[in-house]
Amino acid sequence: MEANRERLKEMIQTLFTISEPCEAGVQRQSYSAAYRRGVDYIKMKMRESGLVTREDGVGNVFGRLEGTKASLPAIMSGSHLDTVRCAGGFDGIAGVVCAIEAARMIKDSGHPLKHPFTVVGTIGEEGTRFGQVLLGSQFMTGVFGEEQLDSFTGIRDGKTMREAMKEYGLDGDLSGVCIPKENVCAVLELHGEQGPVLEEEKKDIGIVNAIVGIAWLEVTVTGESNHSGTVPMDRRKDAGIGAYEMILSLNRELTGKYLRKATMTAGQLILSPGSPNCIPGKCTFTLDIRSGDEDILKAILESVKRCKKELEETGLKVELRTLSYRPPVLMAKNIQEKIEQSCRTQQLSWRYMDSGAGHDAMIFAKKWPTAMLFLPNRDGISHNPAEYIDFDAMKKGTEVLYETLRFLDESNQA
Amino acid sequence: MEANRERLKEMIQTLFTISEPCEAGVQRQSYSAAYRRGVDYIKMKMRESGLVTREDGVGNVFGRLEGTKASLPAIMSGSHLDTVRCAGGFDGIAGVVCAIEAARMIKDSGHPLKHPFTVVGTIGEEGTRFGQVLLGSQFMTGVFGEEQLDSFTGIRDGKTMREAMKEYGLDGDLSGVCIPKENVCAVLELHGEQGPVLEEEKKDIGIVNAIVGIAWLEVTVTGESNHSGTVPMDRRKDAGIGAYEMILSLNRELTGKYLRKATMTAGQLILSPGSPNCIPGKCTFTLDIRSGDEDILKAILESVKRCKKELEETGLKVELRTLSYRPPVLMAKNIQEKIEQSCRTQQLSWRYMDSGAGHDAMIFAKKWPTAMLFLPNRDGISHNPAEYIDFDAMKKGTEVLYETLRFLDESNQA
Repeated sequence: MEANRERLKEMIQTLFTISEPCEAGVQRQSYSAAYRRGVDYIKMKMRESGLVTREDGVGNVFGRLEGTKASLPAIMSGSHLDTVRCAGGFDGIAGVVCAIEAARMIKDSGHPLKHPFTVVGTIGEEGTRFGQVLLGSQFMTGVFGEEQLDSFTGIRDGKTMREAMKEYGLDGDLSGVCIPKENVCAVLELHGEQGPVLEEEKKDIGIVNAIVGIAWLEVTVTGESNHSGTVPMDRRKDAGIGAYEMILSLNRELTGKYLRKATMTAGQLILSPGSPNCIPGKCTFTLDIRSGDEDILKAILESVKRCKKELEETGLKVELRTLSYRPPVLMAKNIQEKIEQSCRTQQLSWRYMDSGAGHDAMIFAKKWPTAMLFLPNRDGISHNPAEYIDFDAMKKGTEVLYETLRFLDESNQA
Repeated sequence: MEANRERLKEMIQTLFTISEPCEAGVQRQSYSAAYRRGVDYIKMKMRESGLVTREDGVGNVFGRLEGTKASLPAIMSGSHLDTVRCAGGFDGIAGVVCAIEAARMIKDSGHPLKHPFTVVGTIGEEGTRFGQVLLGSQFMTGVFGEEQLDSFTGIRDGKTMREAMKEYGLDGDLSGVCIPKENVCAVLELHGEQGPVLEEEKKDIGIVNAIVGIAWLEVTVTGESNHSGTVPMDRRKDAGIGAYEMILSLNRELTGKYLRKATMTAGQLILSPGSPNCIPGKCTFTLDIRSGDEDILKAILESVKRCKKELEETGLKVELRTLSYRPPVLMAKNIQEKIEQSCRTQQLSWRYMDSGAGHDAMIFAKKWPTAMLFLPNRDGISHNPAEYIDFDAMKKGTEVLYETLRFLDESNQA
């Protein structure tokens, strides 16, 4: 059974034009007018593919294809509908579009699944509106409820989530939003890799082992600010120099010991007072540390503490603050095997890999057996108007998704 | 002949109370009401010490003690009257106060100098009002004139220098501001060290060899910004990491090769995009490089270029921009020798050293034989409310200044 490349292309290209005004790329923030138009288009495409559509009380969208056995739980696939600001045309929406096409393939095959198949498009995954990520999936799984409707407020407009929902046309009734555990037997999220590995290694499909755990630390190095001309080099307590030594030391250790198993990024760094003619007296920087292996994550955190001590021995003061810690989330082994089996059947290449970014799948995984498959992003670029996934790659991805659904349908029926 | 410690203390302590409103310390910015009150106090103290006072057309203040030979050029000593924001009570004003006390000593000694002795208090040395440093001295030496009155504008209020001067009570008449070369035979500026060396080495007096040359560079390292979780460590072009390697490499070289002969400071550093979860795609930082030896300054600039090349070989782009370059200014050897002679006579300890900061003396040095003497700043702190010079140290400094004036008076009369 073949996926229709042109249908995929038409959906992606049409959705690229459904946008709030923005400098470049596309922008559909949750509960915006453009988001509504995007949802209307998606629902139309779902209906064209034989799906019965439904919107829940927070704006998640579903398209359901009934199976032959009404008593069975659903297999669910999709991704998020919202975008970052000035986004590319693939992040999130590619997973929805491929799932719609997979549903169309099931319908047109003449061989319906036994399980119901539900295409899902979640809302608020990106966090650009309320500063809270993975919103829709956390409402669907019951992590969030009534309380959050009033406590989450818009970063730019200050409106509560409830107010934003009301303007969007939702009455705040959350009954039916949380989906019971027994209604779903498997979740599959297809997504762009958002990194360069698949393209570099010429692999068609990435099978996600784990969504990495993330530790965010804030490190503050304090030395002594003074005049840049009057203090000899050997009498300085330059907080910047200390911070750079700590960052480079950790960077070397990570690259040497945990290459392709962990990442570390010092993305934010602020010198104080920050004048060209002042020795930096304070340097505050963030460390974003990620690994799919919690033992490695913890080992790196120990290295950070060791580096702190080493730096303190030079006379600088170092404070560590954990901004957040989230352990890795493992994907369901049995679904991973089905994806691999599908790749083999389709004669496609694949590799197992971690997801360095967060996804709704990590929320779903706490309630239902969940897995993810990645498609190559050109040049590894994402969250950027230049983001691109080849339509042939999307076709291959859809066919793997379709095959995986078939294998799951067989195995879950036992 | 002894300096009067209590007179020095009284002047410093009174001037510490003559301030614009500020969070801490003292603040007398050029042409402010507090500045005017400070000048009135200084002029009163000058008159008490037997000096005839004069203000020039831009607000420099002079107090003149006639010598016994009317035809001789003046020996001039002093420093600046203005302060940085939230300043300490010694920067600049200590040099004026000590010169006033030295004049009092000459008067009270009953042995007048042959040369006229002029105490000078310059305006606008700090650059806090117009963003231009060394104003008063550059008007006195003819570097600046009419043009600058309209082109220099206030950083905060946008007023031109001419407007600020008018509010202060000056009519913009610059005749008599530029002092002819033949009217002055020597300039002596006494100042706090603004660094820790004299205190550390327990020296009473610093004799300045040179005011260091300063190169200000802006370095921009460009790599590739991307998601912190999705790009493996060995596939990154992290502009921050590159910048830190360059800074640390230069820092090591400088400390190893030119310790106490040069300084380098990366005081400003900005990462872009600057989010914890983004690999820095761009890093812009400043380098403030100083040395009293121009050959060393040039050698360091060559090292910067070499580091740029080395970094470019790793795939990053590096741009260098020279923001400013000012060669070192050597102090007059014959005056330095007189200061040393005075220290010896007074049984005080001294060391020769460079001035890492700029001073009016570097402007005067281009027109007249000029030298500087430094007093220890407690903990090397300056440009800070906590700035402190011991009054015993000021007494010693005044006595060295007095003796040096005597030696100069003898030698210049030949």
